[in-house]
Amino acid sequence: MTKTSSGFGGGEVVSSLCTADRTSITVRGKDYCRDIIGGMSLSGFIFFHLTGREASEAEAKMLDALIISIAEHGLSPTALAARITYAAAPDALQGAVAAGILGAGPVLLGSADETAALLAEGVAMIEAGTSREDAARQLAKRVKAEGGKLAGFGHPLHKPDDPRTVRLLELAEQYGVTGPHTAFLADLSAAANKVWGRDLVVNVQAAIGAISTDMGLPPFLSRAIPILARAIGVLGHVAEEAERPIGINAVMTVYREARYDPPSE
Amino acid sequence: MTKTSSGFGGGEVVSSLCTADRTSITVRGKDYCRDIIGGMSLSGFIFFHLTGREASEAEAKMLDALIISIAEHGLSPTALAARITYAAAPDALQGAVAAGILGAGPVLLGSADETAALLAEGVAMIEAGTSREDAARQLAKRVKAEGGKLAGFGHPLHKPDDPRTVRLLELAEQYGVTGPHTAFLADLSAAANKVWGRDLVVNVQAAIGAISTDMGLPPFLSRAIPILARAIGVLGHVAEEAERPIGINAVMTVYREARYDPPSE
Amino acid sequence: MTKTSSGFGGGEVVSSLCTADRTSITVRGKDYCRDIIGGMSLSGFIFFHLTGREASEAEAKMLDALIISIAEHGLSPTALAARITYAAAPDALQGAVAAGILGAGPVLLGSADETAALLAEGVAMIEAGTSREDAARQLAKRVKAEGGKLAGFGHPLHKPDDPRTVRLLELAEQYGVTGPHTAFLADLSAAANKVWGRDLVVNVQAAIGAISTDMGLPPFLSRAIPILARAIGVLGHVAEEAERPIGINAVMTVYREARYDPPSE
Amino acid sequence: MTKTSSGFGGGEVVSSLCTADRTSITVRGKDYCRDIIGGMSLSGFIFFHLTGREASEAEAKMLDALIISIAEHGLSPTALAARITYAAAPDALQGAVAAGILGAGPVLLGSADETAALLAEGVAMIEAGTSREDAARQLAKRVKAEGGKLAGFGHPLHKPDDPRTVRLLELAEQYGVTGPHTAFLADLSAAANKVWGRDLVVNVQAAIGAISTDMGLPPFLSRAIPILARAIGVLGHVAEEAERPIGINAVMTVYREARYDPPSE
Repeated sequence: MTKTSSGFGGGEVVSSLCTADRTSITVRGKDYCRDIIGGMSLSGFIFFHLTGREASEAEAKMLDALIISIAEHGLSPTALAARITYAAAPDALQGAVAAGILGAGPVLLGSADETAALLAEGVAMIEAGTSREDAARQLAKRVKAEGGKLAGFGHPLHKPDDPRTVRLLELAEQYGVTGPHTAFLADLSAAANKVWGRDLVVNVQAAIGAISTDMGLPPFLSRAIPILARAIGVLGHVAEEAERPIGINAVMTVYREARYDPPSE
Repeated sequence: MTKTSSGFGGGEVVSSLCTADRTSITVRGKDYCRDIIGGMSLSGFIFFHLTGREASEAEAKMLDALIISIAEHGLSPTALAARITYAAAPDALQGAVAAGILGAGPVLLGSADETAALLAEGVAMIEAGTSREDAARQLAKRVKAEGGKLAGFGHPLHKPDDPRTVRLLELAEQYGVTGPHTAFLADLSAAANKVWGRDLVVNVQAAIGAISTDMGLPPFLSRAIPILARAIGVLGHVAEEAERPIGINAVMTVYREARYDPPSE
Repeated sequence: MTKTSSGFGGGEVVSSLCTADRTSITVRGKDYCRDIIGGMSLSGFIFFHLTGREASEAEAKMLDALIISIAEHGLSPTALAARITYAAAPDALQGAVAAGILGAGPVLLGSADETAALLAEGVAMIEAGTSREDAARQLAKRVKAEGGKLAGFGHPLHKPDDPRTVRLLELAEQYGVTGPHTAFLADLSAAANKVWGRDLVVNVQAAIGAISTDMGLPPFLSRAIPILARAIGVLGHVAEEAERPIGINAVMTVYREARYDPPSE
Repeated sequence: MTKTSSGFGGGEVVSSLCTADRTSITVRGKDYCRDIIGGMSLSGFIFFHLTGREASEAEAKMLDALIISIAEHGLSPTALAARITYAAAPDALQGAVAAGILGAGPVLLGSADETAALLAEGVAMIEAGTSREDAARQLAKRVKAEGGKLAGFGHPLHKPDDPRTVRLLELAEQYGVTGPHTAFLADLSAAANKVWGRDLVVNVQAAIGAISTDMGLPPFLSRAIPILARAIGVLGHVAEEAERPIGINAVMTVYREARYDPPSE
């Protein structure tokens, strides 16, 4: 609730995003129908709409790669949640997509923003005079001491490298969009390997957090990338589900394997 | 539930979308990291993932335009639902986006698929020998007789034309992606104006339904376009909300204007 | 959009549900804090809030039973979707519940309203003079002819009876809340068995649709019962998931069993 | 992802909630159809399903009051999000309810669990020997020093007391379900008034967090109460919306009041 003297709200409703009249639509100061529709690529528009700044061609291509990289990974939790929901409620496609993206949280799919925040913290320490190595070691030790998982590190399948991370970092170099956050990710990786005493995979979320922050996305909006990506990914699953349904079979597979453990008296 | 003799499910779980091992990911038969990430534009990937067919450059550009066209229209119902939800639960960005897309239903934002289905029905009639004019008139009359609204027609603000429709049809022509559904939309519009006795605006949803069907998207998946578009649009609203919050002010505006009408005894 | 001469909305915002001032809240004409909180049972309030009429004690007890009957059925699709989502995003409990209820659609869990609408149609036919037997036969034949599934009939596990249906009908009798819709459900069942040529299980959704309609709930709101029930049910699953996580194990079970079927070239 | 030597999941799928066969359903060790449906009140079942322990009659009545207390408060953010979503997608009732509960997050509606966690921390300090006054002062000072809002305190409308809090505490006393968390809430309130230098309203969320924790609900599950409550509340709004639609009018009200502030060049 806004805090005003009257106690109960009262601030005005103001937005810089869009205004429209009978014959035109203006989005962030541009003529939507003339300059944006047909004038921007989809990633170009996403970047523009999320940051207010027009993407360079390299930035738009990088965003293409970032979103695509995390759109599809088979029968993932989000894909299953969406397929199950579509099987149960096929007339509400939007509900299946919503169920799919609701799993883009911190544990499995939404750690890009957490990594981005950690990298931003490290970059700020470096700018304030700490050496890169020290900044990385301090952050890694703190996370370990707090008993936490290092956001963006580790993967249950991909070893020793997440091939998407490798590819994204290569593209970022090629497109010339790297900056201090991507650079610091390497420092953090080296420090983490020492602190944890074993090699931790730098997963795709870390690459997304680092590169998107270097391109100017606020860290908390890094999670927009897996969210959009999974909206796309689960639509692919729903398209397949509509032709060859397996959502209920999947549930039945679980059902058959599950063991009932009666509560103790 | 699947219908098997055992009664309780049992079909296998099979998918052609993706498989992965330690070092690689394969999506619809292609090496994801080598050929898709960095190799497809975002709309190119969306088209490929939803249809299994690689988009031509023109098709990918058209899909850019279709999705962008319906991403942003100011403080729309979906944008408000998302901003309100983000204001209430800012730590769960995915929830705000989900709340936003749940409004992509048939009344306001999800009529593309309904229009697509109607156009597909008309095209089938024409292929079976009915004249274009007759097919259009029959469909318009049937919808009117059933007391329904003609999906994809009418707009509360844009008159006499929806400028997005005009732009999308122009681009479709330019990109060479029009086909029988887009052609029949003009017939349906002419027939509808006669049947309803006034000029009905052909809105952006109709253009999306027609053009996406001509590009090969199954009609029911036309709704994927407004769903993805609004996921993007509401993320722009959330980005603004994080900097300049108005979600609660908007609710308070409603609250102040609302009238309590006591139930009769 | 509302249809006004100005074209762009304009109707007033009016509600009879609630008004509040600094020291009191009024809900549907009653003092919330004095008469409702502490004065109504939960089902009593649900009934009152959905219909505007105070439930009798029997009706409130019946609603208890209706909601409870469909709250829990093990690792169902909705429970799995919620557990998966909670495992992925444990800080947003509301998202896990939302993912769970999004599966309360017409195929698996939300058919109560469809059954209710069918029963209401039959009751209207009978009131207009058709015999009960004829009304039931006509409806069953129409659904069969349209190639449809008879909403509320059939169950993958429970045979020959759904034990919840048996129990709910028994309680409805005991509480004295049966009426024409519940009576007609028996007719429809008999007719369906003849039309389909085999005994169809009258499932719990049919009982919910029939009894709730007899108690005065509008047919489309019958679906509120499975929706609320599953919100409760999935919260129980989340409570267990927080202590003994299996959501990801379940996904892994599917993953292991799944077969990748490469797309043909 | 579970951590197993094989790297990729592998834990078993086990649950104590429910098992079923053709003729019976067992929930947490009880015969569902015989002992629970028709044998428990709705709140009794909710308590049982969330905690595994049968509620006393007093506890069930208290849970009735806790859930009802936060179900309805007029055109609140959640109610508006649900009405807007229902107006846009009326065929998917579950989507409107989902959109409504997605706003049950920490800022507006989901602070019960945060308060519960704070109270549990205080109770643990007291059990470890700190005086009640000191524990309360330390917690209040810490929250203030961290620049935070004290979860469960403050209300934009209700002053000097939240009438729901007053009523719930009165009922908790009457039902004999108070315990150390409810007692400590008074200490925390007194300390907070001193630390902030003004009287802070103890809002309904604080009462829910305190009382539900005293009844044995794990603190993180306190948020289940506003989630369920709003599922019920928004269904009441949808019921009204179906008869007298105002969702779009509400959006239009905002739209008319909103000011477009063009982005600076």
